[in-house]
Amino acid sequence: MPDILHRVGIAAPIDKVYKTLTTLDGNRRWWDSGATGDASDGGELTFFKHVFKVEARPNEFVKWKCVRGSEEWVNTTVEFRLVYKDNQTFVMFTHADWKKPVEFMHHCSTKWATFLLSLKQYLETGTGRPAPNEVQVYVGG
Amino acid sequence: MPDILHRVGIAAPIDKVYKTLTTLDGNRRWWDSGATGDASDGGELTFFKHVFKVEARPNEFVKWKCVRGSEEWVNTTVEFRLVYKDNQTFVMFTHADWKKPVEFMHHCSTKWATFLLSLKQYLETGTGRPAPNEVQVYVGG
Repeated sequence: MPDILHRVGIAAPIDKVYKTLTTLDGNRRWWDSGATGDASDGGELTFFKHVFKVEARPNEFVKWKCVRGSEEWVNTTVEFRLVYKDNQTFVMFTHADWKKPVEFMHHCSTKWATFLLSLKQYLETGTGRPAPNEVQVYVGG
Repeated sequence: MPDILHRVGIAAPIDKVYKTLTTLDGNRRWWDSGATGDASDGGELTFFKHVFKVEARPNEFVKWKCVRGSEEWVNTTVEFRLVYKDNQTFVMFTHADWKKPVEFMHHCSTKWATFLLSLKQYLETGTGRPAPNEVQVYVGG
C-alpha cells in the first residue's frame, strides 16, 4: 500500500522534539491549534475531527493510528521516528497504509511537508504555522 | 515500487504553468537556477548534475526521465500532470519508480514539496525560491 514519506532535520535536542509530539500543547503549536485529547503513549488524540490512538517510545518514535475520521485516513498510521545525528534531530516521517494513491493523498503529502516545516520552525524559533494559520498549497486550503 | 506524490493548486492559466515547466528559463525560476539544456518535448535537461529526457504534451503533462545521475535517481521519472479546475491549475506530481524507500527518498519528498510551492509562488507573485536559495529542510540543506 502506498505511503507518504518525509524527513526534516531540526536544530533541537531529541527530547524536546519528542515532548512536542507527545503533549497536547506541543501538537497545537505546529499542526492543529484546535487539537484535543491526550498525546501521550496510550492516549487518544483528536486532530481535524480525526481520532488517533497514540503509541510512543521516549526519544525513539511516536505513532498515531487513525481509528475514526475520513474514509481515506481510517486505519492509516502516522509515524515520526526520531534520530539524533549531525547536530540535529531528524524526524523520519511516514503516513502509511493508504488504500490507493488518490488525489487527496497527493494533497496530504504536500500538506504534511508544510506541517513538518512548521514543527521545525516552532522548535527552532518558538513560532510554528499550525492550522488554521498554515501554509496554503492550493487556492482554498 | 514506491513513489513520491504531491499536489499544488496554482492561481495561473494552465498554459502559463506548462510554459514554465517546458522552458529552461521557467525551470530556472523555481527549481534550479543553474539548470542547463532544452526543456521542451524531446529535449535533454540537466538539473543538479542529473540528466533528464523530456516528454511533454501541451497543457496535459511534462515528464522527465532521469538517464544519468545519482544511483537513487537513475531510471526514476518525475511527472507533472496539469488539470485546470476550481479557478486554478492543479499540478499532480509524481516522482515514480524509486527502488527502495531509503532515507534520501524521505528527504527528496519534503524537498519536492518546497520546490512545488516555489513554482506556485513564482507563478503567482513573479518570484520563486530556486536553488541555491531554496527552503532548507534540515541543518545543511
